Amino acid sequence: MHYDTIIYSVEDKIATITLNRPEKLNSVSEEMIDEIIAALDEADGDDAVRAVVFAGNGRLFCAGADLSAGDKTFDYDSQADGQGGSPVQADGSVDYSDVRVRDGAGRLTLRLYRSLKPVIAAIHGAAVGVGVTMTLAMDARFATTDARFGFVFTRRGIVPEGASTWFLQRLVGLDRALDWCLTGRMLSAQEAVEGGLVRSLHAPEDLLPAAYAYAKEIADNTSPVSVALTRQMLWRMAGADHPMAAHRLDSRGVYARGRTADAREGVASFLEKRKADFPDRVSRDMPDFFPWWQEPDYS
Amino acid sequence: MHYDTIIYSVEDKIATITLNRPEKLNSVSEEMIDEIIAALDEADGDDAVRAVVFAGNGRLFCAGADLSAGDKTFDYDSQADGQGGSPVQADGSVDYSDVRVRDGAGRLTLRLYRSLKPVIAAIHGAAVGVGVTMTLAMDARFATTDARFGFVFTRRGIVPEGASTWFLQRLVGLDRALDWCLTGRMLSAQEAVEGGLVRSLHAPEDLLPAAYAYAKEIADNTSPVSVALTRQMLWRMAGADHPMAAHRLDSRGVYARGRTADAREGVASFLEKRKADFPDRVSRDMPDFFPWWQEPDYS
Amino acid sequence: MHYDTIIYSVEDKIATITLNRPEKLNSVSEEMIDEIIAALDEADGDDAVRAVVFAGNGRLFCAGADLSAGDKTFDYDSQADGQGGSPVQADGSVDYSDVRVRDGAGRLTLRLYRSLKPVIAAIHGAAVGVGVTMTLAMDARFATTDARFGFVFTRRGIVPEGASTWFLQRLVGLDRALDWCLTGRMLSAQEAVEGGLVRSLHAPEDLLPAAYAYAKEIADNTSPVSVALTRQMLWRMAGADHPMAAHRLDSRGVYARGRTADAREGVASFLEKRKADFPDRVSRDMPDFFPWWQEPDYS
Repeated sequence: MHYDTIIYSVEDKIATITLNRPEKLNSVSEEMIDEIIAALDEADGDDAVRAVVFAGNGRLFCAGADLSAGDKTFDYDSQADGQGGSPVQADGSVDYSDVRVRDGAGRLTLRLYRSLKPVIAAIHGAAVGVGVTMTLAMDARFATTDARFGFVFTRRGIVPEGASTWFLQRLVGLDRALDWCLTGRMLSAQEAVEGGLVRSLHAPEDLLPAAYAYAKEIADNTSPVSVALTRQMLWRMAGADHPMAAHRLDSRGVYARGRTADAREGVASFLEKRKADFPDRVSRDMPDFFPWWQEPDYS
Repeated sequence: MHYDTIIYSVEDKIATITLNRPEKLNSVSEEMIDEIIAALDEADGDDAVRAVVFAGNGRLFCAGADLSAGDKTFDYDSQADGQGGSPVQADGSVDYSDVRVRDGAGRLTLRLYRSLKPVIAAIHGAAVGVGVTMTLAMDARFATTDARFGFVFTRRGIVPEGASTWFLQRLVGLDRALDWCLTGRMLSAQEAVEGGLVRSLHAPEDLLPAAYAYAKEIADNTSPVSVALTRQMLWRMAGADHPMAAHRLDSRGVYARGRTADAREGVASFLEKRKADFPDRVSRDMPDFFPWWQEPDYS
Repeated sequence: MHYDTIIYSVEDKIATITLNRPEKLNSVSEEMIDEIIAALDEADGDDAVRAVVFAGNGRLFCAGADLSAGDKTFDYDSQADGQGGSPVQADGSVDYSDVRVRDGAGRLTLRLYRSLKPVIAAIHGAAVGVGVTMTLAMDARFATTDARFGFVFTRRGIVPEGASTWFLQRLVGLDRALDWCLTGRMLSAQEAVEGGLVRSLHAPEDLLPAAYAYAKEIADNTSPVSVALTRQMLWRMAGADHPMAAHRLDSRGVYARGRTADAREGVASFLEKRKADFPDRVSRDMPDFFPWWQEPDYS
């Protein structure tokens, strides 16, 4: 596939999605969101990909929304492009169920939420607005020592997007999420790592190697199908009301996986003190109860 | 409005609610709860108020329940005051749906949960029982270096109140909430700050300035309407089962706010590297989808 | 009661459940799970027991699943024992609602979730697989300085069990849960304590004394009925969507407990600056609204 706003490449079991609008500080357009989603589909469908690393080309990871429309940046209707009009009705009311109201950052984080491969962000320089909220549905964030982060929405007169009011507090707790989102202030890399948003800090030249090393630790040691299931179990249990929801899932999971060649190889390799070579593939060997959920509609 | 048990004042965009029963160590009565709720209503309705600071007059922030009834302190029926009897039925059973059973601390924290202005606690000396649980639905807690905290309910033969079994674990995690509530022991300021209950510690003379400085950071840099919406989004997403709940909300939020003068000012001031002057007001400019929730009944 | 795989003893208000298959590194069998559940029933029914300490006999706490079946370890059907066949249907599909699919580790953690007594793990050496997931529904974990922990499921080709995808993130946050479960790597005691999984680290000879000291702090200072209620309130509020759920509960709790001899003793002992001697007993004095929940079925 060809992409205009990102670079997609696969090497040594790891896919890399590089935000590639360096002249615009990788600010996010609807086209870029569509292309990232297409690249994630490509990664999920390719058994040669065990994990995905996100990076940014140029001076920084992502400056957030593209502000080239100036003070009309967030005024959707001023940018209407003949897609059939506006969600504003004749009487002036807004039809919020109109898909044109739908936030692009949220389309992206909800797609990341469904990912079958672990996704790892390598953040250099800065991640602001959608630049940081897009990473909240990823499985790990590494950053440069000089990186800065900003949930700046209250300072722009809007509100946090990308479903970040749901994701952020599950990563850093409610108290920090309130602090970061209510003040809208810029955060240092140190504050981000102390708060649990970022795993570890690195010199710029060491950042991508650290992200790849982590991706490789997963790729070299684990069953792809087990990782895909475990990722979905963890994210989907974040909102479950009772541990019985997990018990139902993992009972099915252990039973179905326990009968596979992967489970035999997992135990045999452990007993023989050698690296496992798991035969099962995500494209063909997911258990029959997968997916177990029905994704809620946007409406 | 006149208050007997608290002092309510507004200065420089910040309201202060001071617990004012120093001779009783600011122990909490039903009257004080009613007055705090009235003061929060006043703050929410006043566009001149951008944030609320809670403080205590006298030796300490709040000693908890008023123990002047001695060992009958928590025996509601022994204090029945002609409001029409008791929730105890003729056959000895209790009608728990009776509003007279309703915990006052919970009435207060549920009101704080709905607040449109950020609320900041400045805790000196001690916060015990309802003295600390009332602060859990606030957006930040600062304390003096010598402050002590106690979720002492199991040591008094009762149970945690103020909906604290819901709030506390969302701030400090389930493990600490179990530790603090099961043992009922007193916690040092150091333990509270390490556990994430308190943001930072201060000398007594620096406590209120720290709380005001934080309130001012919000007041001087952010849109009041964006803050009111963001606060509600974060608190209400704490219990949501799926990020789609946030996606629905923030799609509506970014769309509706993006068309406002606030959003234009937010981007323009950023591009012009100047402080923003947001024109929208909470009293008149909340978006038409607000409130998006239906508050559950007590029953 | 007689147990084959564990030792159950009660001394000085504390029950101890010792995993006792040292020759098999305390690996977990279905029989051991049944016996632990029976021992927890015994502890909950015995007013002389105020808390439960879990320990392991021999070289380490628990090595996880019993791998003596080799590469068929997780292949349930290969171990079918005449209990009436297999959940695999004639057409090859699996009946996942069949109780024989039900994960033993989850039966155990769901039983711990319902416990009326606080449960404390004393982990020496190692806790791997079900050896660590079984402790996630306990109220505190202490460990030796050399202890190692492993959520190794993705390295065995299966998935996390014991409802651990629900429990773990509520103790250590979603980011750490993802890290630990996706990589499946072994964790040092230091990483476990920094992540919030373990309270504190001890030399081997100091581990059980530390666990008993903590159990005694609860036993010596708190009301047994208040602790049983508080424990259930905290665990069950972990998944509740709105703080009103807690407000309903604690209103009932404070009202019902406030009328008891325990509440009178709690306040009187505090005012008299003496240790409380709570008369209420879990076996007979739980409030009439207990249990307030209906446990969901496995299906």
